[in-house]
Amino acid sequence: MLPLTTFTAPIIANIENNELRQQLQQIIDSKTKPLGALGRLETLALQLGMIQGTTTPHINQPQIRVFAADHGLTKHGTSAYPSAVTAQMVYNFLQGGAAINVLARQHNIELKVVDAGVDADFANSPFKDHPQLLDYKVRCGSRDALTEPAMTEEECLATLENGMKVVKGLAGNLLIVGEMGIGNTSAASLLLARLGDVPIADCIGRGTGLDDAGLQHKTDILTQVLARHNEAQSPLDALAALGGLEIAMMAGALIQAASERRILLIDGFIASSALLAAERLAPGVAQYAIFAHHSVEPGHAHLLKLLNAEPLLDMGMRLGEGSGAALAYPLLQSACAIINEMASFSDAGISEQNS
Amino acid sequence: MLPLTTFTAPIIANIENNELRQQLQQIIDSKTKPLGALGRLETLALQLGMIQGTTTPHINQPQIRVFAADHGLTKHGTSAYPSAVTAQMVYNFLQGGAAINVLARQHNIELKVVDAGVDADFANSPFKDHPQLLDYKVRCGSRDALTEPAMTEEECLATLENGMKVVKGLAGNLLIVGEMGIGNTSAASLLLARLGDVPIADCIGRGTGLDDAGLQHKTDILTQVLARHNEAQSPLDALAALGGLEIAMMAGALIQAASERRILLIDGFIASSALLAAERLAPGVAQYAIFAHHSVEPGHAHLLKLLNAEPLLDMGMRLGEGSGAALAYPLLQSACAIINEMASFSDAGISEQNS
Repeated sequence: MLPLTTFTAPIIANIENNELRQQLQQIIDSKTKPLGALGRLETLALQLGMIQGTTTPHINQPQIRVFAADHGLTKHGTSAYPSAVTAQMVYNFLQGGAAINVLARQHNIELKVVDAGVDADFANSPFKDHPQLLDYKVRCGSRDALTEPAMTEEECLATLENGMKVVKGLAGNLLIVGEMGIGNTSAASLLLARLGDVPIADCIGRGTGLDDAGLQHKTDILTQVLARHNEAQSPLDALAALGGLEIAMMAGALIQAASERRILLIDGFIASSALLAAERLAPGVAQYAIFAHHSVEPGHAHLLKLLNAEPLLDMGMRLGEGSGAALAYPLLQSACAIINEMASFSDAGISEQNS
Repeated sequence: MLPLTTFTAPIIANIENNELRQQLQQIIDSKTKPLGALGRLETLALQLGMIQGTTTPHINQPQIRVFAADHGLTKHGTSAYPSAVTAQMVYNFLQGGAAINVLARQHNIELKVVDAGVDADFANSPFKDHPQLLDYKVRCGSRDALTEPAMTEEECLATLENGMKVVKGLAGNLLIVGEMGIGNTSAASLLLARLGDVPIADCIGRGTGLDDAGLQHKTDILTQVLARHNEAQSPLDALAALGGLEIAMMAGALIQAASERRILLIDGFIASSALLAAERLAPGVAQYAIFAHHSVEPGHAHLLKLLNAEPLLDMGMRLGEGSGAALAYPLLQSACAIINEMASFSDAGISEQNS
């Protein structure tokens, strides 16, 4: 069956444009402040201008999609929480009680939850017609990667395509992909190890809260999974073999969003692993990424390095859901406001620096 | 004349309360997330609850006061910009074009500019009746600290009292003190060296943009100033001798705000130096402080250490005006929202961790 080759990525535009970069830098430098005094906010404004191809970057109708799925591997005890929590948290999202709901409300970011493969029957639940729940279930949880690929070729391609569909024609110009999936740090660690060629022990953390014995057990299981799928080396093969359904959907969503020149505001470990997969499947996607925060999940540092990323925040968080991205969102608004609204030295009639 | 002893600080309540601390921690731990997964946002929520003495911290009508003044020392070439820029930037604030205007508008923070001693005649300017300009001018710029104290005893006490008046009875429960004053990193460095017992060379940076020769010259001048005022060791003596007018007003404002149990959202180097002075004049003030960001001005790291501070952001900024504090402000709103709005495990019917 391998290698799988049937995924065709859309065209991703190269954002580099020397003239625009210089124009943006000149505008930023003309503002009423000492040169460079707004630090990272200035480079962020420049980056947003480059992504949007304009000297007046702006954000409208920002969107969060939280992709939820279960993981076959959890039957081997790779997570501190039972699988049932994935569906329970979906209900929590739909009732507005999770961290991502609170942060999305604060910043007026539209939030929807995508069933990317939760092991629960939402169609026969009281939430079946909930306007915030999108049904893209390909199967109830990924397969057990210890014994077979987490997805078949068809499942993996359908999941990627579904991720693209979720974004296609969406309102607004900024996307946050969040996730909920008990066991998904395992899938992210496996992808990082395989696609980033990082030793698996360096990719693994405590997830939702494993103790030392649990961490050792997780390491043992993931080492076996990697060995089992030694032949799955291409981005698509690795994604299918190692999972998970929500990560593959997120990768599809990021690819589509980049092809539409949206700003990708990247959350933590899981979202970054999806971006790595997306970048390998469709080179250029990562140009559209702004990295929100540095997760304490140990593998994240490796992902950030692979992606040349400098996150905005370092708040010691490890929740997922898109929470770190939502928290960082107002910094992007600030960067846009600075470049669009601040007076220049000549506007304001202010003396320049002593020569 | 020394030592000056006539400043009487208001009562600053001790915020420590073990029972409340435990209640807050319990509420935070009950939320639908793995224990501690929101990291610094959780400790921030707890800190806000302790400051306000409640399990439901909230922020209303946040206020920024930008204190502007000139500095006698600048005649010795201690800054990269001419003194005239202080007044020019006041006009920029009043016209809404500065970074702090942009950020205050973004977050609905009320902004006023306080003339703490700018060397300009605003009373005969087109802005004399501007509703955002508050006149607390004690004199046109501080005295030249190389030859005399930056303020006389009367001037220093009047400035502290004025700072308190600006805050007394103010709307809202959160205060940001910003500043504009060409030459004010020199005053902040001097205060840090004297009150923090830090070698002066470690307290000095490039301010608005000195080159190497300018930095060496600044170091030489400030070394002479410290020697000239060797006897000014008490907090009040040091403040009067080393200045500046805006820093003394900020210290008064912080003291009054803490006595009214307001949240003090502390900006960068200059604001932290005012907090150090305030804490020494009225022990306990620093309990009310949340540190917004880590400035790249080198002395700030020493101030943060002296104040046991862990700032929220590290964005490579060094602008002042309260800009770093305004940028961090939504993180405080997020922390309040998390503790007030997130569902608990029992609310949401979610399974607890595997034992």
